[in-house]
Amino acid sequence: MQYKLYYWPGIQGRGEFVRLAFEAAGADYVDVARLPASRGGGVAAMMKLMQSGAPNAPLAPPFVVAGDETVAQSANILAWLGPSLKLVPRDAAARRRAHQLQLTLADFVDEIHDTHHPIATHLYYEDQKPEARKYAAAFRKHRLPKYLGYFEQVLARNPAGPAHMIGRRLTYVDLSMFQLIAGLRYAFPRTMAGVEADYPNLVALHEAVARVPNVARYLASKQRIPFNQSGIFRHYPELDR
Amino acid sequence: MQYKLYYWPGIQGRGEFVRLAFEAAGADYVDVARLPASRGGGVAAMMKLMQSGAPNAPLAPPFVVAGDETVAQSANILAWLGPSLKLVPRDAAARRRAHQLQLTLADFVDEIHDTHHPIATHLYYEDQKPEARKYAAAFRKHRLPKYLGYFEQVLARNPAGPAHMIGRRLTYVDLSMFQLIAGLRYAFPRTMAGVEADYPNLVALHEAVARVPNVARYLASKQRIPFNQSGIFRHYPELDR
Repeated sequence: MQYKLYYWPGIQGRGEFVRLAFEAAGADYVDVARLPASRGGGVAAMMKLMQSGAPNAPLAPPFVVAGDETVAQSANILAWLGPSLKLVPRDAAARRRAHQLQLTLADFVDEIHDTHHPIATHLYYEDQKPEARKYAAAFRKHRLPKYLGYFEQVLARNPAGPAHMIGRRLTYVDLSMFQLIAGLRYAFPRTMAGVEADYPNLVALHEAVARVPNVARYLASKQRIPFNQSGIFRHYPELDR
Repeated sequence: MQYKLYYWPGIQGRGEFVRLAFEAAGADYVDVARLPASRGGGVAAMMKLMQSGAPNAPLAPPFVVAGDETVAQSANILAWLGPSLKLVPRDAAARRRAHQLQLTLADFVDEIHDTHHPIATHLYYEDQKPEARKYAAAFRKHRLPKYLGYFEQVLARNPAGPAHMIGRRLTYVDLSMFQLIAGLRYAFPRTMAGVEADYPNLVALHEAVARVPNVARYLASKQRIPFNQSGIFRHYPELDR
């Protein structure tokens, strides 16, 4: 079955956690909003589904359509597709833990977003710069070490070894953790350079995921949208250390 | 089996979404941190589990222990317990949709929290009042109508009728939506008085859930912690309309 991913075409954003899972699994999917309108693509096609009046119309992207089902919320999408893509362990308790980790990661991503948009998502960064400086300072000092320290511990305590967030094989949580580290390095290069020695297992996980053949191929392709100043991870030097 | 809920004892917070599910289902549960230390309770008992070094130790409450499993993240807990508590439809696609709605509701709750804490969770409200005023103004104008409008539409479009968020019976999503409306009325009474006419199905859902016998009994009991100025929903008149 071909999966249809709907997400903003110009950014990695929260859609990237789903793209990475599709790419790592070698899944058959189309990134609908990045197709031309002549092929049924574009943002208009995405908005049409959101405003369709269907009972399951999502509030926001990303969402994935497969057959007659439409599923939104990135962590919910990954919990749904993980088994088919073979990116999550088999047993139910491990799947709940994978989802719990993904939701904790999503909380962190929300806070990363808020470093440049602490007041309102509909305003430009330039309209909330003083507040962003305050938010980012507290983020660098308190929140970043809290989350990274937790995730480092999760790796260190994995009974199957520190190569994976859960179990002994690659999961969607590992892929998302790769994206998180990559994004933090883009957004906060000086901060990350100063703290990465505290998180050796996370750094090793990032490197290992980048070398997974399907992931390496994707990262080197045009399909991978570069980090940019419209996404969740943005590099504003004044928000860095 | 007796469930053990761990959450901050003095507030409703995110634990309340889980408490409401337990109460509505008449489940056998203990609210561990609200028990005296002499009975194995208190915040110390909760912190001990979080700092246990176990592979599945959660980053933050709420979490629920049942047998040898510990599950965190309120939406993940509800997705896990929903079937046992008979608070979610049977089919897998409907369960994914219920979870999607719960995650969307959780996003809204995060934004409600940020109305009084837009800069940093470790600071007092009094240390971020000017920023909170700005955030709350944008929240009232843009975010509140966006989310409530969406949830109102979900009710209006439910093929089984507007009495429930999904399907034809009470689910944990309905219980959480009750809590959301109750909390918004506490935090933003003037704003809500001005807009509730736009959301008749949500208002009716709130009333119906409050009349469910197990819920009505709980709400009238000492077990229901009152809304207060330490929780997620806080009433600061200067943040209201």
